[in-house]
Amino acid sequence: MDTAVFENHESEIRGYCRNYPTVFASASGARQVDEQGRSYIDFFAGAGVLNFGHNHPAMKKALIEFLEADGVAHSLDTYTTTKRDFVERFHEVVLAPRGMDHRLQFMGPTGSNAVEAAMKLARAATGRREIVAFSHGFHGMTLGSLAATANDAFRRWAGVPLENILRLPFETAPGGDTALAEYAAALKDPSSGLLPPAAFLVEVVQAEGGVNVASPDWLHQVQDLAREHGALFVIDDIQAGIGRTGSYFSFDGMGLDPDIITLAKGLGGFGTPIAMNLNKPEVDRHWSPGAHTGTFRGQGLSFVAGKVALDFFTDDAFLEGVLEKGEQMRTRLQAIADAHPDRGWVVRGRGMMQALDTGDGALNARLQRECFDRGLLFGPCGSGGRVIKLIPPLIIEPDDLAEGLDILEAAIAAALEEA
Amino acid sequence: MDTAVFENHESEIRGYCRNYPTVFASASGARQVDEQGRSYIDFFAGAGVLNFGHNHPAMKKALIEFLEADGVAHSLDTYTTTKRDFVERFHEVVLAPRGMDHRLQFMGPTGSNAVEAAMKLARAATGRREIVAFSHGFHGMTLGSLAATANDAFRRWAGVPLENILRLPFETAPGGDTALAEYAAALKDPSSGLLPPAAFLVEVVQAEGGVNVASPDWLHQVQDLAREHGALFVIDDIQAGIGRTGSYFSFDGMGLDPDIITLAKGLGGFGTPIAMNLNKPEVDRHWSPGAHTGTFRGQGLSFVAGKVALDFFTDDAFLEGVLEKGEQMRTRLQAIADAHPDRGWVVRGRGMMQALDTGDGALNARLQRECFDRGLLFGPCGSGGRVIKLIPPLIIEPDDLAEGLDILEAAIAAALEEA
Amino acid sequence: MDTAVFENHESEIRGYCRNYPTVFASASGARQVDEQGRSYIDFFAGAGVLNFGHNHPAMKKALIEFLEADGVAHSLDTYTTTKRDFVERFHEVVLAPRGMDHRLQFMGPTGSNAVEAAMKLARAATGRREIVAFSHGFHGMTLGSLAATANDAFRRWAGVPLENILRLPFETAPGGDTALAEYAAALKDPSSGLLPPAAFLVEVVQAEGGVNVASPDWLHQVQDLAREHGALFVIDDIQAGIGRTGSYFSFDGMGLDPDIITLAKGLGGFGTPIAMNLNKPEVDRHWSPGAHTGTFRGQGLSFVAGKVALDFFTDDAFLEGVLEKGEQMRTRLQAIADAHPDRGWVVRGRGMMQALDTGDGALNARLQRECFDRGLLFGPCGSGGRVIKLIPPLIIEPDDLAEGLDILEAAIAAALEEA
Amino acid sequence: MDTAVFENHESEIRGYCRNYPTVFASASGARQVDEQGRSYIDFFAGAGVLNFGHNHPAMKKALIEFLEADGVAHSLDTYTTTKRDFVERFHEVVLAPRGMDHRLQFMGPTGSNAVEAAMKLARAATGRREIVAFSHGFHGMTLGSLAATANDAFRRWAGVPLENILRLPFETAPGGDTALAEYAAALKDPSSGLLPPAAFLVEVVQAEGGVNVASPDWLHQVQDLAREHGALFVIDDIQAGIGRTGSYFSFDGMGLDPDIITLAKGLGGFGTPIAMNLNKPEVDRHWSPGAHTGTFRGQGLSFVAGKVALDFFTDDAFLEGVLEKGEQMRTRLQAIADAHPDRGWVVRGRGMMQALDTGDGALNARLQRECFDRGLLFGPCGSGGRVIKLIPPLIIEPDDLAEGLDILEAAIAAALEEA
Repeated sequence: MDTAVFENHESEIRGYCRNYPTVFASASGARQVDEQGRSYIDFFAGAGVLNFGHNHPAMKKALIEFLEADGVAHSLDTYTTTKRDFVERFHEVVLAPRGMDHRLQFMGPTGSNAVEAAMKLARAATGRREIVAFSHGFHGMTLGSLAATANDAFRRWAGVPLENILRLPFETAPGGDTALAEYAAALKDPSSGLLPPAAFLVEVVQAEGGVNVASPDWLHQVQDLAREHGALFVIDDIQAGIGRTGSYFSFDGMGLDPDIITLAKGLGGFGTPIAMNLNKPEVDRHWSPGAHTGTFRGQGLSFVAGKVALDFFTDDAFLEGVLEKGEQMRTRLQAIADAHPDRGWVVRGRGMMQALDTGDGALNARLQRECFDRGLLFGPCGSGGRVIKLIPPLIIEPDDLAEGLDILEAAIAAALEEA
Repeated sequence: MDTAVFENHESEIRGYCRNYPTVFASASGARQVDEQGRSYIDFFAGAGVLNFGHNHPAMKKALIEFLEADGVAHSLDTYTTTKRDFVERFHEVVLAPRGMDHRLQFMGPTGSNAVEAAMKLARAATGRREIVAFSHGFHGMTLGSLAATANDAFRRWAGVPLENILRLPFETAPGGDTALAEYAAALKDPSSGLLPPAAFLVEVVQAEGGVNVASPDWLHQVQDLAREHGALFVIDDIQAGIGRTGSYFSFDGMGLDPDIITLAKGLGGFGTPIAMNLNKPEVDRHWSPGAHTGTFRGQGLSFVAGKVALDFFTDDAFLEGVLEKGEQMRTRLQAIADAHPDRGWVVRGRGMMQALDTGDGALNARLQRECFDRGLLFGPCGSGGRVIKLIPPLIIEPDDLAEGLDILEAAIAAALEEA
Repeated sequence: MDTAVFENHESEIRGYCRNYPTVFASASGARQVDEQGRSYIDFFAGAGVLNFGHNHPAMKKALIEFLEADGVAHSLDTYTTTKRDFVERFHEVVLAPRGMDHRLQFMGPTGSNAVEAAMKLARAATGRREIVAFSHGFHGMTLGSLAATANDAFRRWAGVPLENILRLPFETAPGGDTALAEYAAALKDPSSGLLPPAAFLVEVVQAEGGVNVASPDWLHQVQDLAREHGALFVIDDIQAGIGRTGSYFSFDGMGLDPDIITLAKGLGGFGTPIAMNLNKPEVDRHWSPGAHTGTFRGQGLSFVAGKVALDFFTDDAFLEGVLEKGEQMRTRLQAIADAHPDRGWVVRGRGMMQALDTGDGALNARLQRECFDRGLLFGPCGSGGRVIKLIPPLIIEPDDLAEGLDILEAAIAAALEEA
Repeated sequence: MDTAVFENHESEIRGYCRNYPTVFASASGARQVDEQGRSYIDFFAGAGVLNFGHNHPAMKKALIEFLEADGVAHSLDTYTTTKRDFVERFHEVVLAPRGMDHRLQFMGPTGSNAVEAAMKLARAATGRREIVAFSHGFHGMTLGSLAATANDAFRRWAGVPLENILRLPFETAPGGDTALAEYAAALKDPSSGLLPPAAFLVEVVQAEGGVNVASPDWLHQVQDLAREHGALFVIDDIQAGIGRTGSYFSFDGMGLDPDIITLAKGLGGFGTPIAMNLNKPEVDRHWSPGAHTGTFRGQGLSFVAGKVALDFFTDDAFLEGVLEKGEQMRTRLQAIADAHPDRGWVVRGRGMMQALDTGDGALNARLQRECFDRGLLFGPCGSGGRVIKLIPPLIIEPDDLAEGLDILEAAIAAALEEA
């Protein structure tokens, strides 16, 4: 393993490589292989990007054909046949069956950029400035999206005040049960010092924030409050969407009707960048052409592989498998929690985003190393890394999933002993 | 040509497609072909991304091999063999020959994100907030980089105040000759209402802003002023770098020593997204691991093709060709300007970024349509689109270049007649 | 009555004159007389300034002597014998008996300026920016104090964002019972998106905000939370202090220990301007000489009359009278409320700040006119003027007080009939 | 001299008392007397308030009569006979002869409050946020006016960003000769990153900023630029107005037509607080009643003495005397400067605001002490106190003026020797 090149020339900011001290050479399905030939089960999936695994064969084939045919790899927002295929297929598989007529907006291919665009549109559509975001929310790293992100470990790097956001506690945070009602009352009080917001920006499952699951009832309260005050209801589905929770959107089946939905991560299928917002037409019409540009907003490879990824959602089989495997993950995590009753560990999650909140970031850091040594990759999340988040590729084979959970259990035992 | 899918389902924000009313099906070298089989010479190069043309054969080959070998397409900031190859090669070809020891920082793959990261680092390294940016500068669309961008057509979409930027006129703008001296004097005056800035953020050639070319002398003044006041000197080389102006960096040979250099666009070689900053080690050490994250910051495809792109810079031949072709472009543009002496048209540019400032956005819009009809693509820039910017792929064949310039000349005649 | 001069030459912004359509010529004790010789009982006391009535004989005498002796009327912050007398007497009568060693700071003679100075000092002493203020709070009209003021009817005139304030509901506002606990929990949560504040700025009785009375227990919670997080505890006693609630400070006897107390209004005794903060020495030492200046910060006339006013507080008799008269006011208001059981009117207050919350600004506006016609002056407060606030001079004669309350009762009957 | 009371109980922020280490007991005309009976000639006039000297006999008489007649000392913005007399007289003496129909607006009695009100009105009238202010400008200490103040010694105490101001160099500052033209060009450039401002806020003579005198031509350029862009032209005449420069307004006779004029300091005549803006009717109508309130905005004593002060301006004699004495001051200062040709001292000023810029704050501090020891009071101004500013009462007797200048000359010699 030769990492000197990185140590000598790459920025001190590099992070995950410090927890996975090896050099990966290839990857396939739910496994990555390093240059020594060691294989790792991947419970991290590129931070929730690789829902369909590494190098999915059908996508790989489509990408190679695209390259060989001199497809248009980079098109900004000009029209290409590849893009048309993707848009058409997305409408057919996702929007039409749900009776949704949202418009697809492509922007610079990062989730952060999707959130920035949604914030601009919400402000333009309402003529207001303040956006309500929630504690433990994660929405990105650029100044607009970072203002909506709650974690101070990220916020303090802004170097400037992060403004025009009003922060409320998320449903599962302290005060989360009463905060919406109180805020609703304050909005009706002309001496509250508050003006109505442009939008409410919320995750259905807060992934980076610690796998905090909102209830449909609470989400409806948020939506109702937005409607009542002429604010937009925006769902950030960047990490929880595209099948992760057992449905295409994380909010499917809840009867919600968001004005804007932000998507990225798993949308491109293969791990190539793409970001896309779904805007209701009556909101979308507030845009002027070119109002929010971005060089890499027309990515042929992502359209090609992303179109293949939509095939997973044409019948129920795939998502049923996600729910089954999610249940298997949850059962194992609960058994682990139950085996340590005095520690107060809590299991949370939906579909194949399942988590064990140990409340102990130091323990989880040791666990991450123990897992790595045993051939399992995962990433902690939540404040101080207090939550063990498991987000394997949705296509993981049952054997790999079981083996990974076995490793986790053994590694937990080892990490506890270390203390 | 079927564009109904886009019209029915894509956002109103789409822009370039309105000026290029067709559906592109493939692309190669300096040409794009639409689904009717019509071929277009490309003087736009994906907004300056495709310096090495569409589907460059060596890159295409390397990408297909990478895909077939199950390379790691998406790696965040874990180590991969592919990334190591890129980092090593970049150091060997670009940094080492220049005696530079800057650290490579990868972030979310947009130029905007590179600028956001540079702004964070400058603020963290200095403990200051305000960053000096220049009129006509373009640095991105997210709230931090948008604050540095000057064009009001973009700024007004922020919906919130864009702050913590002090704006000075660029060298070529009104007052640009005296502004630095006056600002220098004000910084020494305790009653100027000004504090020393965190950084000066400048483009050597303002591409989107109208192809405004800074002189080495003025850039040295900026750098000296930064040094004098403990501020960082940051060059945004996103559009002008990677060979565009006839040298790898746009500032090569000027004796400048920037603390941070932002790169993106052409860096990935093929049009797949990547962004990278070069930070001096003494600045870079102010980062903590994970201080500025981003999902798509480890793009295997861009590392692979970007490494191939570096081969162009191992000897002088390629850049000499760029300078020759640039001279050819300039000569033709000057002849066009000279043929209309009463119009006050001005030719500007460096290397293969050459421009004709007609001062007339309406004329240029007509011209864009006339060119499209004749099989040539280009994009206007500058305030109100007043500048005809020509940025063909650097690898364009002389015949294509000559044909494109012929078309331009004919189209100008037609556009003038329309008025 | 000739008001043409005002109508022709004074700004449209003039307000109270529209509700009291006459020209006052003289005033004495709790009565004002207009140029037609009509006498009005004053239940408004110059917005809470005239605690000791109009033209108090002892103060008048002292002022005339001061003028005749060529006293220093305007001294900035140079030392004068008159100022020394005031400072000495204030220490003797107010601070020493309470064991307080706060430092006296004089500034531009408005309450708004006192609040601005307190905010600066809190920010300088803590190195933090955000200040917690409460819904329904009123702290002034200049940009710093206006940011702390809650009423949107004032805030919207700022024309710029009012920032660096975190707003919590006041104890008596919706959510006021749980807000402090939730905020306390959030401050301990590193993913709450919140940083510890510089200060908590609170009124013990919100006068302009609707005569909302905080409990000692809640105020202790605020103070404890401030202490726990290294923030200052600042009491704005500008309207409720100087005897108004039946004690010198509105928080006397509660065991509270504020770091800064803002005073103005009644402090000068006679109605001439003065403002003063009391800063704990360990906080005060963060000031540098001249850090917050102000032309009119040394007002000889206010020092002279303000010193006389301190005589009221050398024994208990005066304040006992305030409490008795306050009780009388409250009893009458309660009887009025009880006489209209279906209207849900609420009586609130402390000492001689007593109020009837009718919830009906339009009714109160009619009432104000009916009272004026009958020879009684008062001013509504609270959102939309929903609260009838009675703040007669503390020295009002029992007969005048009774007569004023009779008028009020009769006017209420008339105002109700009008509807 | 007993100053222990101050040292023990007053805030550390006290400033002037440190330079004038005595306790003043009385004052008359241009002289103050301390409790040891020492008499000081006053070249400071309470920071420019006491244009008519201390305890002017006619004002004193009027004030005593007012007090004895139980005049309404504190009236908010209700109508009083006293206020009517003032308004009427102001119109008669100041506005009518100039053909001005500005409306008089009274606010909290500080210059800072006048500026805050002007800024609110300018923002409300234009719907814009940014206000252009100038380097070396001084406009007050509250957050809105402080943002417009340039001196960093004051600004850094804000503790929060001071925003919504665009700063240009004053005419006499470096770059001041070209800045307006460059700004004008930038406002026409849609890629300048600038929007048109709400107002230009300017002093005709910058008093605190170092006695910098603007030319009529430059002021017209400011006014023209404001008009061209729909911005208001606001003159802050708080220190330079009310006769100080030899005319009632500092801009009399220049053909200027400001939309708003801010006044305070000398307006009340006697040193009691008052502030007033003059708003053009078409601007003033943007106010709603009560939009900007303030407790002490109706000061009977200031109306009474301020009306007497207007008598000075009913013929030319008084102002001619101001010009003569100003010339005498200037001649002496120039002689002093000429006597030290190697030091590069500069004399500046208009009327009876005359200054010697020694460029040496340490020297001036020594000089201040030397003057005090010899019985002369003055205050330095400008960055670091580099300017000796002389602003004696306009009514100073020729003998006192000559004696003060003699003392100054002797003290300069002594201060130079100390170095």
